[in-house]
Amino acid sequence: MIKVGVAGYGVIGQRLADGVALQKDMQLVGIADVSPTLAVRALKEKGMPYNLYLAAPDNKAQFDELGIPISGTMEELVQSVDIMLDATSAGVGAKNKELYAKLGKKAIFQGGEKNSVADVFFHGYANYEQGLNKQFLKLTSCNTTGLIRSVDCLDRAYGIERVAITIIRRVADPGDYHRGLTNALQIDKAPSHQAVDLMSIMPHVNATGILVHTPVTHGHIITVVATGKNKITKEMALEAFGGHDRIRIVRIADGFLGNASLFRYARDLGNPRGDMYEIALWEESIVETGNDIMYAINIPQESVTIPETMDGIRAAMGMQADRLAGVGETNKYLGLGKWK
Amino acid sequence: MIKVGVAGYGVIGQRLADGVALQKDMQLVGIADVSPTLAVRALKEKGMPYNLYLAAPDNKAQFDELGIPISGTMEELVQSVDIMLDATSAGVGAKNKELYAKLGKKAIFQGGEKNSVADVFFHGYANYEQGLNKQFLKLTSCNTTGLIRSVDCLDRAYGIERVAITIIRRVADPGDYHRGLTNALQIDKAPSHQAVDLMSIMPHVNATGILVHTPVTHGHIITVVATGKNKITKEMALEAFGGHDRIRIVRIADGFLGNASLFRYARDLGNPRGDMYEIALWEESIVETGNDIMYAINIPQESVTIPETMDGIRAAMGMQADRLAGVGETNKYLGLGKWK
Amino acid sequence: MIKVGVAGYGVIGQRLADGVALQKDMQLVGIADVSPTLAVRALKEKGMPYNLYLAAPDNKAQFDELGIPISGTMEELVQSVDIMLDATSAGVGAKNKELYAKLGKKAIFQGGEKNSVADVFFHGYANYEQGLNKQFLKLTSCNTTGLIRSVDCLDRAYGIERVAITIIRRVADPGDYHRGLTNALQIDKAPSHQAVDLMSIMPHVNATGILVHTPVTHGHIITVVATGKNKITKEMALEAFGGHDRIRIVRIADGFLGNASLFRYARDLGNPRGDMYEIALWEESIVETGNDIMYAINIPQESVTIPETMDGIRAAMGMQADRLAGVGETNKYLGLGKWK
Amino acid sequence: MIKVGVAGYGVIGQRLADGVALQKDMQLVGIADVSPTLAVRALKEKGMPYNLYLAAPDNKAQFDELGIPISGTMEELVQSVDIMLDATSAGVGAKNKELYAKLGKKAIFQGGEKNSVADVFFHGYANYEQGLNKQFLKLTSCNTTGLIRSVDCLDRAYGIERVAITIIRRVADPGDYHRGLTNALQIDKAPSHQAVDLMSIMPHVNATGILVHTPVTHGHIITVVATGKNKITKEMALEAFGGHDRIRIVRIADGFLGNASLFRYARDLGNPRGDMYEIALWEESIVETGNDIMYAINIPQESVTIPETMDGIRAAMGMQADRLAGVGETNKYLGLGKWK
Repeated sequence: MIKVGVAGYGVIGQRLADGVALQKDMQLVGIADVSPTLAVRALKEKGMPYNLYLAAPDNKAQFDELGIPISGTMEELVQSVDIMLDATSAGVGAKNKELYAKLGKKAIFQGGEKNSVADVFFHGYANYEQGLNKQFLKLTSCNTTGLIRSVDCLDRAYGIERVAITIIRRVADPGDYHRGLTNALQIDKAPSHQAVDLMSIMPHVNATGILVHTPVTHGHIITVVATGKNKITKEMALEAFGGHDRIRIVRIADGFLGNASLFRYARDLGNPRGDMYEIALWEESIVETGNDIMYAINIPQESVTIPETMDGIRAAMGMQADRLAGVGETNKYLGLGKWK
Repeated sequence: MIKVGVAGYGVIGQRLADGVALQKDMQLVGIADVSPTLAVRALKEKGMPYNLYLAAPDNKAQFDELGIPISGTMEELVQSVDIMLDATSAGVGAKNKELYAKLGKKAIFQGGEKNSVADVFFHGYANYEQGLNKQFLKLTSCNTTGLIRSVDCLDRAYGIERVAITIIRRVADPGDYHRGLTNALQIDKAPSHQAVDLMSIMPHVNATGILVHTPVTHGHIITVVATGKNKITKEMALEAFGGHDRIRIVRIADGFLGNASLFRYARDLGNPRGDMYEIALWEESIVETGNDIMYAINIPQESVTIPETMDGIRAAMGMQADRLAGVGETNKYLGLGKWK
Repeated sequence: MIKVGVAGYGVIGQRLADGVALQKDMQLVGIADVSPTLAVRALKEKGMPYNLYLAAPDNKAQFDELGIPISGTMEELVQSVDIMLDATSAGVGAKNKELYAKLGKKAIFQGGEKNSVADVFFHGYANYEQGLNKQFLKLTSCNTTGLIRSVDCLDRAYGIERVAITIIRRVADPGDYHRGLTNALQIDKAPSHQAVDLMSIMPHVNATGILVHTPVTHGHIITVVATGKNKITKEMALEAFGGHDRIRIVRIADGFLGNASLFRYARDLGNPRGDMYEIALWEESIVETGNDIMYAINIPQESVTIPETMDGIRAAMGMQADRLAGVGETNKYLGLGKWK
Repeated sequence: MIKVGVAGYGVIGQRLADGVALQKDMQLVGIADVSPTLAVRALKEKGMPYNLYLAAPDNKAQFDELGIPISGTMEELVQSVDIMLDATSAGVGAKNKELYAKLGKKAIFQGGEKNSVADVFFHGYANYEQGLNKQFLKLTSCNTTGLIRSVDCLDRAYGIERVAITIIRRVADPGDYHRGLTNALQIDKAPSHQAVDLMSIMPHVNATGILVHTPVTHGHIITVVATGKNKITKEMALEAFGGHDRIRIVRIADGFLGNASLFRYARDLGNPRGDMYEIALWEESIVETGNDIMYAINIPQESVTIPETMDGIRAAMGMQADRLAGVGETNKYLGLGKWK
């Protein structure tokens, strides 16, 4: 049993903890945070299913006052684990890395940290082998993770030379009050970092893209124009995508009208928090022109990186030496692909 | 064991079915719908935890094609139950009533139907006794249900003469594409039906109000100006609200900044679909002026009527003759008040 | 001709400048700002109808590069005027006050500054006389300005004892990217400052209120529960409101469905920027209960304070000694009431 | 002087009327509508700058009651003009066409009508010559009009083989209450009609695209991936776009952060209704990959088709036989390009 800890119990950290708890070959030792946020209060109300370690010892009185039990310091948590998943705010991970290094532990950082924080910039499906037995990995961000799933899928099947993406980005998570956009689209300087990151993970592909923020909370939509080495038809694309356990093909005709339909569906499935690990790909969005194939995917930003992070643990800890074996174990424990 | 069926497996119907399934003294015989909606597809993907009956026999081929098993017709469902919960679209319930009457069954209709569809316009806390052993009940709508919880609570404790409400209404449910509002507030002709409905359930209170639609999906906020028979202080109000198992007192200072915080908290609690049965009441919203006390509550529109509908079953079936016994059983099975 | 300058050429400052330019007994000497914002670039593209003074001399190169002519420093502007309208960011006005004081000039500050910045907290209709010949006035904020128009109107006609307000607040102005809210309502600690401010201007009225932010940009809606000294009927209220030149009575039945209808109407009227100086009051929102009268008004947040600021110039400069004469001159030049 | 009438005084019709009124070689005879909408009420409040003809004689009493003067029937309007601009609701134009044909008049229909309503599907810059002296033209829709401006511009300069577009569409106009979307993105079946329409106007270009609706009101954003016959660099693209009088190059660095910045800027420019005739193109959005050039444009949906409709009048009436002469006259009267 690989022992895992999670630093930062926010939107991503909570989901990482839940993901680890589902892996039968891993043990979640505990989670660490600095203050009694709503997420920590919810943990308390649920009866403390996970042990909580304190990353800011000065704040202990705040937890005591609320009757929230503390299992130790964050340093104690790190000492007890084989690997840490760091989902703290951008910049904090780089500081935490010193602690992990000092104690000789491995760690996986989330997309907000700089690439230099890690030995390898990692994606479970696209470059699993490069993460094998490394000490520090950094996961691709939510959009890049989902995007690469689809491009890597086509690339392995048919060969991809070039992609041009348009990211229609959700601007805040449900419940965010510290950021938001009201009746406005906002454009970022191009190329978007997701295109640049894709080239870092898949250096044989040329990529560019534009990102536009939109005032919604339930998932990004990305359109991809992918140029194949040879002609890729809609049928060929559907066959490849259909065989991928982290891509769910959906149809507008069935009622999946947009990102909000997917969130509702995940809630109705009974998925915890209404989360979805898989990206959705609209069958009716796939169109061809010349050697280009164009399609649209949905990225559930809160949960999409969880499977690839589990893959990262498997690679970094050498649990499975083989890419498909590694992602396959993750998929099995998360129930991915079982809808097919 | 009281046998219960649900007609209409939409936003409310799904939650009614889940609510019944939690009542240990009730049995959910099945649910009925007309076509393979996303909700029905999700039921299929979950492995059919509930039996599905077909309300539109002509559509059977659509279900067969998708491999969704049908347990019978809606009429067969009605025959097998003691009471139906009708959560069909507005207007359909009135037609279904003919079937319920023909088969001599009881039924509870949701807020969208006209009051004339039922013998009693019902609210578990406010007029439980009037629903006792009646054949047809109609539940108050989501806003009215939550509003009355709070006004009835103050009224029983201290006596209320008059209320003036402002309903800041969510315009669509998460996942709705058939209605919406974009960058606009919309005002309805006053008085709002919720104020009128409150007077129908609590005839000794004078009520009026204005409703404004806002472009959000996660819960209404209602401000209430309540005029007591005598002065009601903030402390008195807090004491009364704090003793109510379907009212959760929350604090802005703790991070509950608005309706979206509550939705996030419910998701983080692991509540199915991120639902909440209780209304939330902000402690920092309570202010006094003269004999008036003013406060703000949050109404989780998708799930707030579920407890009162369970109360309605208890009343209509005579399961508990006493108001507090009836609502108490509902609260026990739904886990209401256990956070205190 | 009273000479006027404007400091801060943002959302409010631009409109103040336009407002002064319309007063035939005032002369707009110029406006001052610190950097070539979009508003300044638009001024340039329009051919510099107003003289621009530089409040941050170090930034001159930025203006030169864009070919934007500078007429002098802000200090030179202040020296040339009788009174400054300060619409700079909150906090800057307090610093500017030192300059105004040093040069012996009068000034009117906008609602973002602390009350202590001024001799008088001012509203044209409610306390004009208190502003007469004072050196420093502070205007009420947008919501308070519009709210007081309606409450003062009823109070002068019939006597008001108490008000309880619910402010359904727009969270950002059109074009704002530095603040926003996405799919969320946000509640503030009660009582809202607008209620407190109303009591400061109208000390004989008891007021309280709750404010909820909503994700829209085109105008706040406020519901008011006003308790009269005696019964006020809907007809009485309509008669009073109908006689006020800064209140426009509108009807849902005519197509005024909400704040966005009013913005569209103002655009279609050809009003510069689609602005409206008057508040709108929905006839169908007026309801009675006991001695209480309840109604809803729309506050066009970008422009509503312009008329009362013009009133402030008239009072501070002693242009008209009488309240109705002062506001009447403002109304005449701004075309207020001419729609009746 | 060419005599022009406008049928349908809604969002587009009002702007067409204003556009015609600015053309010094045209005369606006009047506008026609069916009921006293807010737009008609605003016309009345402005003092009836345009003559109003009645398209639904049965509704005359409604206008009389409001004191809105009627200059005659719609048939009388059509008889008095050389050409009608039909901006009625989709489907009504096809019926109106019978009247225009009966009276031997020319007409230009807006994008909502079917292509079959007209002899030519028209775009001022792309196929002016095909509209020469034709009786019936149909304008491209708002997105297609703006899109073609940019693609035709590159195509004439360097040759374009293929485009793949992503349309990030505003879902409603400011003030719309009959349609909207709340916290949701919605995807349409691909290819989008705009791509198909582009091929109809520019048959030598291969085009496809995906459209996603977003909950905003102030302008669409389109990303375009254009494949040149040869390599097109960013500098080449900027040079071509910079020479086009209906394309405004803007910079994020200057404060143009998205569609809402453009709307604010147009309001601050004093443009009537805050409208903009030109599309904006973000300099920082232009990126290259292989022979592909990618960029993003903003489409001000309410007003973008006005210049091309004026071009259509010039073509259909044979006012200028030459494309550049025709669009040049339009540009001169609308002030297009003068910002350069």
